[in-house]
Amino acid sequence: MNGLDTELVAEKVAQSRRAVAETDGVDAWVTFCRETDAVPEPALPYVLGFDVVWPTAVVIGPEDSTVVLGRHDAPNAEELGVHEVRAYDESIAEPLRTTLDEIGTSGDGPQTLALNYDADDDTADGLTHGLFRRLESLLPDREFVSAGPIVRRVRGLKSETERQRVRRAAETTEELLQTAASTWGPATTEAAFAATLHELLDDRGLGTAWARDYCPTVHLGGDSEVGHTLPGEHTLPEGELLHVDFGVRRDGYAADIQRLWVRGEPSAELRAVFRDVRAAIDAGHEVLEPGVVGHEVDAAARAALTDRGHPAFQHAFGHQVGRVAHDGGTLLGPEWERYGDAPRGEVRAGEMYTMELGVDTEWGYVGQEEMVRVTDDGTEWVVPPQTRLRRLSETD
Amino acid sequence: MNGLDTELVAEKVAQSRRAVAETDGVDAWVTFCRETDAVPEPALPYVLGFDVVWPTAVVIGPEDSTVVLGRHDAPNAEELGVHEVRAYDESIAEPLRTTLDEIGTSGDGPQTLALNYDADDDTADGLTHGLFRRLESLLPDREFVSAGPIVRRVRGLKSETERQRVRRAAETTEELLQTAASTWGPATTEAAFAATLHELLDDRGLGTAWARDYCPTVHLGGDSEVGHTLPGEHTLPEGELLHVDFGVRRDGYAADIQRLWVRGEPSAELRAVFRDVRAAIDAGHEVLEPGVVGHEVDAAARAALTDRGHPAFQHAFGHQVGRVAHDGGTLLGPEWERYGDAPRGEVRAGEMYTMELGVDTEWGYVGQEEMVRVTDDGTEWVVPPQTRLRRLSETD
Repeated sequence: MNGLDTELVAEKVAQSRRAVAETDGVDAWVTFCRETDAVPEPALPYVLGFDVVWPTAVVIGPEDSTVVLGRHDAPNAEELGVHEVRAYDESIAEPLRTTLDEIGTSGDGPQTLALNYDADDDTADGLTHGLFRRLESLLPDREFVSAGPIVRRVRGLKSETERQRVRRAAETTEELLQTAASTWGPATTEAAFAATLHELLDDRGLGTAWARDYCPTVHLGGDSEVGHTLPGEHTLPEGELLHVDFGVRRDGYAADIQRLWVRGEPSAELRAVFRDVRAAIDAGHEVLEPGVVGHEVDAAARAALTDRGHPAFQHAFGHQVGRVAHDGGTLLGPEWERYGDAPRGEVRAGEMYTMELGVDTEWGYVGQEEMVRVTDDGTEWVVPPQTRLRRLSETD
Repeated sequence: MNGLDTELVAEKVAQSRRAVAETDGVDAWVTFCRETDAVPEPALPYVLGFDVVWPTAVVIGPEDSTVVLGRHDAPNAEELGVHEVRAYDESIAEPLRTTLDEIGTSGDGPQTLALNYDADDDTADGLTHGLFRRLESLLPDREFVSAGPIVRRVRGLKSETERQRVRRAAETTEELLQTAASTWGPATTEAAFAATLHELLDDRGLGTAWARDYCPTVHLGGDSEVGHTLPGEHTLPEGELLHVDFGVRRDGYAADIQRLWVRGEPSAELRAVFRDVRAAIDAGHEVLEPGVVGHEVDAAARAALTDRGHPAFQHAFGHQVGRVAHDGGTLLGPEWERYGDAPRGEVRAGEMYTMELGVDTEWGYVGQEEMVRVTDDGTEWVVPPQTRLRRLSETD
């Protein structure tokens, strides 16, 4: 996005006020940050939409909201027109306390502020420990709780504008993948295929959904090591797989899909593995609906794969997608320590998820990743899924 | 940077080990992070140089270093070849504790780990509060201290490679500014001038030193509001100023300079203000050398400006430049609350600083910003300073 994203911020701030009003024991949600160009605050694009230099607090109460920020950052906030604006020169302390005093408390105890920290959800964990300590000393008489539940609601439940942006990002991702695949030849290396996608992005002025060096990841054939690796120098042997994990970011929103092509004729065994991978994704997809708990969806897909004699995948079956590819909140993953509480969250209508898994074979990585939006009674595809192996045709 | 920045990381990790060895009461420096594409850890480019998805700990002891990271992120760490690599599948807990146990303690008490939190220095404050709480529960028997002094040493003291990268970024910044100024015409708006610089960047595949929407900031004439504002629709009246604050990022390092052009003939008063601004920068420059304290440099420049009858500037005189434009550490700024302890740091040889200030006038903002490197006995210019008002020539 170039310029201020006023309409979207207004929409998400209104949603945030409702979330604060409906969250028991929280008087206000405070996003506290600084130098967000160097250390982005993942909640800031929703509640402000531009970067700030000096310490800044976006304070959202149940009825209205205020941004307290440095004098030089203030003109953007005035132009945005979503919040009351309090600009300071030397210290944020007084205007911040005044703002919080005006909101007051709903209960008898001290004022309770929801802050952006969460041990398991990086998208709700933008407050640094240093800034937390600074808030403790600025506001010794307040109580702090995690804003995780508020952030997950605001971030997870996509507005119509957000839905359209994610869909466009996914459609563009598919289009660029098809275009890049049409340029493939026997001499094409993983690095060259990645460079083609980067050129297509640059021509259109688009960004990547995750770090450019790893977006796309490209694997050619059975000798290529699977993981978040840099594209290497393998080329593709006959009968083996081109596997790509890729996502475009456009208008601030991301896509994340995996696609597969085969060179020449796939073996019967390879076809069988592809069917098993599809069946396991379908098994997870079948149980994905509002109210289901994240790890239940993962377990359905995981069992479908291992029941077919394949090793279990070492990652979560699915994650939410939004401003970033891994957009936090409820995870369709196993209850492993590294995922914390994220797999124990409930799926809600309006959230958008990937569904992904794969099997490593002698012909390459048979990995698939699809995107769906949860509706009131099930899901809808963001873009149509890949249901058959695509064939590469040689262009040189 | 595309790919792994192995040489630079090896250089900075060696420097980090020395910093740990020479910091009293610290047994190891631990950079703990996850999903660094969404929430970058500012220390990570120095100690690892690639993004990670799962929770990751880079543990640097006085003699050696280990990275504990998820299985899918491990191939990059192996290829980097700088650290011992411990990959995990389900939980970082055991391999992290094993790594720390091997390092042991230098004293009698519990092991003391330096973590990336700092109330005043955002570049040393990459640890989120949620991850801090997770470390507390993972490592209940360790003590934690701020890694601020270690980060400031590693980040501030530029190696030869880093020096060259900052210089190239500054030279390119000057070159692009000159090229853009040569396209100026009376109909050129601030937004159009910014777009020209963005096109020049895109043609060369270069990035901006801070958020693209605000890099450059462009002000045309006395009606333009000064601050971190989006470029607007003003054009330039006769006798008034084009002021640009701009920096290129290339090879991972940033520049940050301000330049001024005048349309037609400047008034005698405008010339006098420009001389005063230069004199105030020179006054700060004169006292900038190893051992001086940040706010002393600011005070010298500030007094020189106000002694000449101008209002004091509402920001710091200078900041360090490195991977980002505002690179943390010692600040050449006043002792205001919002700057915390940063202005009380000592300047050290090897650090690179901006020197900047300005005066708002009826002809526009007379702002200047230069870049210097501190040497053993003074400073050297990164690029030559602007010592006279440049004239715009009309091209249409």
